[in-house]
Amino acid sequence: MNIETNPQAQDAGGAKVRTGIADCDIHPSPRDFEKEVYPFLETRWQRYIESYGMVQRVGFMGGTQYPKGQPRASRRDSFPPGGGGPGSDLAFMRQQHLDPHNVELGVMIPLRVGQQILNIDLAIAICSAMNDWQIAEWTSQEPRLKGSILTAYQDAGAAVREIERHAGKDDFVQVSMLSRTPEPMGNRMYWPIYEAAAAAGLPVGVHAFGYGGTPVTGGGWPSYYMEDMMAHSQSCQALITSMVFEGVFERIPGFRLVIVEAGIAWLPALAWRLDAIWRKNRGELTAVKRPPSDYIRECIWLTSQPIEEPDTRQHLVDAIDWIGWDRVLYASDYPHWDFDDPQQVLPVKLTRAQRDNFFRDNAFSAYGLSDG
Amino acid sequence: MNIETNPQAQDAGGAKVRTGIADCDIHPSPRDFEKEVYPFLETRWQRYIESYGMVQRVGFMGGTQYPKGQPRASRRDSFPPGGGGPGSDLAFMRQQHLDPHNVELGVMIPLRVGQQILNIDLAIAICSAMNDWQIAEWTSQEPRLKGSILTAYQDAGAAVREIERHAGKDDFVQVSMLSRTPEPMGNRMYWPIYEAAAAAGLPVGVHAFGYGGTPVTGGGWPSYYMEDMMAHSQSCQALITSMVFEGVFERIPGFRLVIVEAGIAWLPALAWRLDAIWRKNRGELTAVKRPPSDYIRECIWLTSQPIEEPDTRQHLVDAIDWIGWDRVLYASDYPHWDFDDPQQVLPVKLTRAQRDNFFRDNAFSAYGLSDG
Repeated sequence: MNIETNPQAQDAGGAKVRTGIADCDIHPSPRDFEKEVYPFLETRWQRYIESYGMVQRVGFMGGTQYPKGQPRASRRDSFPPGGGGPGSDLAFMRQQHLDPHNVELGVMIPLRVGQQILNIDLAIAICSAMNDWQIAEWTSQEPRLKGSILTAYQDAGAAVREIERHAGKDDFVQVSMLSRTPEPMGNRMYWPIYEAAAAAGLPVGVHAFGYGGTPVTGGGWPSYYMEDMMAHSQSCQALITSMVFEGVFERIPGFRLVIVEAGIAWLPALAWRLDAIWRKNRGELTAVKRPPSDYIRECIWLTSQPIEEPDTRQHLVDAIDWIGWDRVLYASDYPHWDFDDPQQVLPVKLTRAQRDNFFRDNAFSAYGLSDG
Repeated sequence: MNIETNPQAQDAGGAKVRTGIADCDIHPSPRDFEKEVYPFLETRWQRYIESYGMVQRVGFMGGTQYPKGQPRASRRDSFPPGGGGPGSDLAFMRQQHLDPHNVELGVMIPLRVGQQILNIDLAIAICSAMNDWQIAEWTSQEPRLKGSILTAYQDAGAAVREIERHAGKDDFVQVSMLSRTPEPMGNRMYWPIYEAAAAAGLPVGVHAFGYGGTPVTGGGWPSYYMEDMMAHSQSCQALITSMVFEGVFERIPGFRLVIVEAGIAWLPALAWRLDAIWRKNRGELTAVKRPPSDYIRECIWLTSQPIEEPDTRQHLVDAIDWIGWDRVLYASDYPHWDFDDPQQVLPVKLTRAQRDNFFRDNAFSAYGLSDG
């Protein structure tokens, strides 16, 4: 470990510390899908994929929303020297990321596998196989890495069975969904998933992306990749609004939500307006017993990447002051192109407590891990 | 005028001042549509309305997104004692709002008339008639009130003709659109409207609401009125994003945008992320020459109502510090239910300059009025 690249290497008083960090958004990929994932798929699905492929629910860019200048949406230096795509080689991930950044807890979220597949039975099978793959290729070999239980959330019953199949395993720290769902995320078609996650002691980690089948903005389909990226914070504002007003946080004790890769600084303005509008219209519904900001503060964590970058850096600190220094989780997005280096993610003076929370302790709280 | 109810009655030093305020969102309605608006409609449209009605593009609540507990979306005390709906009686509006709040400039935005009508020729005719109605019933009788040129923006050519018909009249201070358009608002189908507004020296005032024909969130149709209300700030974030990246602000010199009734505190976080994503992906498009926040600071004003209400009121001041004290316009939303009293809209200590800007001077800049 290079102490110089450890953001916790110096505290405000200059004392050396060597605690690791938690990175709450790492994207592993199979190096060879057939070799690594087929063993966990029934033969009929192997044959099906060979005949029909894995047709996904796609957005306005035909499902490939990444500019080619960012190959596989990844850092150009993240292709393992021994071959394979970014995030496909554990040894290289250790060398390039886990070791130099002293990652003590790395939360893996496999993307573009399973959750967007239109054939729902295939989606269920792929999610299940990818969960077994996370154990076989990653968590069983590297205790610093933890997985996310992928769910085909269009079939809540199947998602619940998959959650229950892994509940209690220390390979997984959350249940994974994507942010752009066919129905707003507070809809009760998803409640069994939230209940199963809470029963298993796991948060639901909602990663930005996905396509629900409708335009990504309330004003239709945008034209550019950058607009598609910008729409993530808006879809997460909508899903939090939906979850608050449908009563998810009120009705499901222990439900925890982690918003991944949608920014953070929009949360205060959202909460202020939620509170105000609820105070004035609360007779519309009965599920919400307390000001929406109460649920947000108690039940929601957000990962930092891509963190907003105001010219006046203090403004970001002010935003986190409202959100709570116990609510924002460091995430790198490794190996993707917009990777946030822990050294540079929060270019402001932090107190020791703020730094410990942000880079490590909050993750243990969010995922319900005992702090060892 | 009751000096006690004038927010500018005392400056920080306690000196009495008597300057008026600008209210940038007042909603007038015809008391009797046939009597007041038919004179400005060709006979064939009068007959058409009697046979076919005015069928509007509607949202998930069938076009009536207001709870009945707020009749006509209005303050219960805003029904004129002599009959008619809220905002339909000039004398009562003077008595209830313009005089006691010392409104020097009141910007009228007629809603639910014309812009959402599906028969585009009828939409054009109604918008045009409502513009004539604004002059006949309001601006010609009350110099403190100014109108908004309603446009059937689905037909940009017709919208341009309507703008040109009124350009130069001091009855109007802006061109009016609604925020939820069928295509994102930066789309070039709308550019002729923006160019005509700029040529006429008028800003485009985008009032929240409208339905484009697609769900109001990127995650589908929500369930509740409160979610529909919350989605306004998201659709305005999307439309600013679209206008920035489609190059509206870069391509159209003098184009000015006023965002009405969508809140304000979300703007800093939007701009921070726009800047960051543009810096990293600017090769995707050529229309954007400068950081998006430059365009936002130069070309966009926002009205205050419904202002966010953070527990720590200083947070709202911090947000306006970033947005710019020269960019936020006081608006009451009179006579609607969520009326913001100028006494209470900004429950923080303001400097004299901040107060003058917010309550009056910014409006004169935004609308390009000479300050007399």
